[in-house]
Amino acid sequence: MHIDELPTPALWADLDILETNIAMMAQRLPGNRLRPHVKAHKTTAIARLQYEAGHMGFTCATAREVLGLADAGLGHDLLLANETVDADRLTSMARSEARVTIAVDSEATIDAAAAAGIAECVIDIRVGFRCGCEVGEAGYLADRARKAGLEVRGVMGYEGHAMGVVDLDRRRELVEAAMERLLQAHELVGGDLVTGGGTGTHAVNTWVNEIQAGSYVLMDTAYTEQVDQPFEQGLFLQSTVVSIAEKFAVCDAGLKAQGMDHGNPSWREGEILFCSDEHTNLIPEKPLLVGDRVCLIPAHIDPTMAKHQLLHLVRNEEVVGHWEIDLRHW
Amino acid sequence: MHIDELPTPALWADLDILETNIAMMAQRLPGNRLRPHVKAHKTTAIARLQYEAGHMGFTCATAREVLGLADAGLGHDLLLANETVDADRLTSMARSEARVTIAVDSEATIDAAAAAGIAECVIDIRVGFRCGCEVGEAGYLADRARKAGLEVRGVMGYEGHAMGVVDLDRRRELVEAAMERLLQAHELVGGDLVTGGGTGTHAVNTWVNEIQAGSYVLMDTAYTEQVDQPFEQGLFLQSTVVSIAEKFAVCDAGLKAQGMDHGNPSWREGEILFCSDEHTNLIPEKPLLVGDRVCLIPAHIDPTMAKHQLLHLVRNEEVVGHWEIDLRHW
Repeated sequence: MHIDELPTPALWADLDILETNIAMMAQRLPGNRLRPHVKAHKTTAIARLQYEAGHMGFTCATAREVLGLADAGLGHDLLLANETVDADRLTSMARSEARVTIAVDSEATIDAAAAAGIAECVIDIRVGFRCGCEVGEAGYLADRARKAGLEVRGVMGYEGHAMGVVDLDRRRELVEAAMERLLQAHELVGGDLVTGGGTGTHAVNTWVNEIQAGSYVLMDTAYTEQVDQPFEQGLFLQSTVVSIAEKFAVCDAGLKAQGMDHGNPSWREGEILFCSDEHTNLIPEKPLLVGDRVCLIPAHIDPTMAKHQLLHLVRNEEVVGHWEIDLRHW
Repeated sequence: MHIDELPTPALWADLDILETNIAMMAQRLPGNRLRPHVKAHKTTAIARLQYEAGHMGFTCATAREVLGLADAGLGHDLLLANETVDADRLTSMARSEARVTIAVDSEATIDAAAAAGIAECVIDIRVGFRCGCEVGEAGYLADRARKAGLEVRGVMGYEGHAMGVVDLDRRRELVEAAMERLLQAHELVGGDLVTGGGTGTHAVNTWVNEIQAGSYVLMDTAYTEQVDQPFEQGLFLQSTVVSIAEKFAVCDAGLKAQGMDHGNPSWREGEILFCSDEHTNLIPEKPLLVGDRVCLIPAHIDPTMAKHQLLHLVRNEEVVGHWEIDLRHW
């Protein structure tokens, strides 16, 4: 099937780009130097490619992602890089065939993990603006976790505030300051793992021993301004022009079909005016006709993937298959 | 089950509010004066309540919504208020048991509908900033549709730009200007239907003979500033506090669990700092503990409903059931 025959809106990946991105990252951060974050793609089939490229462990944001990878036989070493006190989900993860490690940052999250029979944890350190304990609490929490019967594998810290900074020197400064805190905490906690980072900092964060990058597989538009990103944009939202006005055209892929938190999608053949629920208004460089195809580039892959059931796979404009985006929801 | 036992993030509707909103609208715009827009909730079970309240016809944004309602036996009079040239989907709609009317605004959309065996259409007039033909083209397109064998039921026009205007006089002015154009087009087109409007303009748009409101069932936060809105907010996103910092708390419902195009959610017990993929950072008025529940109010119900599989149903804090959000995707 040619790509123009897909019913729209249709989310598709350029398979050549996807494979190149995965191979390039596996060269930069081989094996266990990368713990790919599946929240970016929520697709077991992509995780399998990352596994085949040598990355045995995965980072997950939800219990759904952990349990899905476990069911798929990809549970060699799964890190839920997220706090939870959900007893049922913790118990399901503890009982799965997978090796599951849970991030904890408080007495409550430690106690919940231990009570559910979780075997291993990392102490999550607040080095950015999201979850994590203070450095000063890390030693106490590690002791408490060990007393509760948990194996403490090390520390985790996500420097999210540095991720999108375009200026390389400034980004490196922010990462260094964050990682200084993480390493201080690591001294108090012990264990082998110092885990953190993401696509935006994968090349400058030399302090952690594993990077939790996810977006690199298909890339966010924000990263294209960063000079040290070798990865190419590989996720596209195919749409059809359904209406033409004097000054704009309207296509059938709107904000229900893509994440809007990083702003409007990009488009190589004109300007994006705005997105509404089921439409995007465009100012094309060359006149369009009703029925023409328009290929949008979603700004943020994580929430975009989470909105679609299927990811179509394209090589040279031919649709060669599709993958179910099977790790969605919670 | 008590609402605090729901695994989070969990989307829930206050059933009392939902029922009151539906009853109140049925009183304001009884029977065929309202053609409820299912794009707001994408849930057959809610459409059935609207049908039982006396509204026999529905407005749809996607073929999926049309076909889902047809399968559920709610296909008495379905309007796809949206242009499409998708031959397969048009054929499926034409072959369904339902009475299906399609919006058209160009030769291409008319020809596609006729070729697929669609029987009826409305001419969509551009009275706002989305789809629709110019008033001056309306008569020609109606003729062309009739020549192609389509029954032309009338005109449609969506004054989306007036919907969120808080000042009532200004809103009425905008609606009047838009509807003047729609009525001009109606004179050229003929037919019984003059359809348009939405929750924001349902009380001031006295020019159309049916209103396409959808959001009123559970309400968007933007509408709460409009003095003429009698409907109450009924959609909530239940989340759990998973991490506490000195100056903020973090709960487990982020931007993958709600539409962000109308901005951050509201929260009655403090301030929202920001949403990330799987978290929302909060400044609570009173100290929170890990494990506490936080009830967010999503800003825009349409894309929020589209992100969840289930809508939980709550009365007096008890979960009394759930509905599948079954008309999602395309």
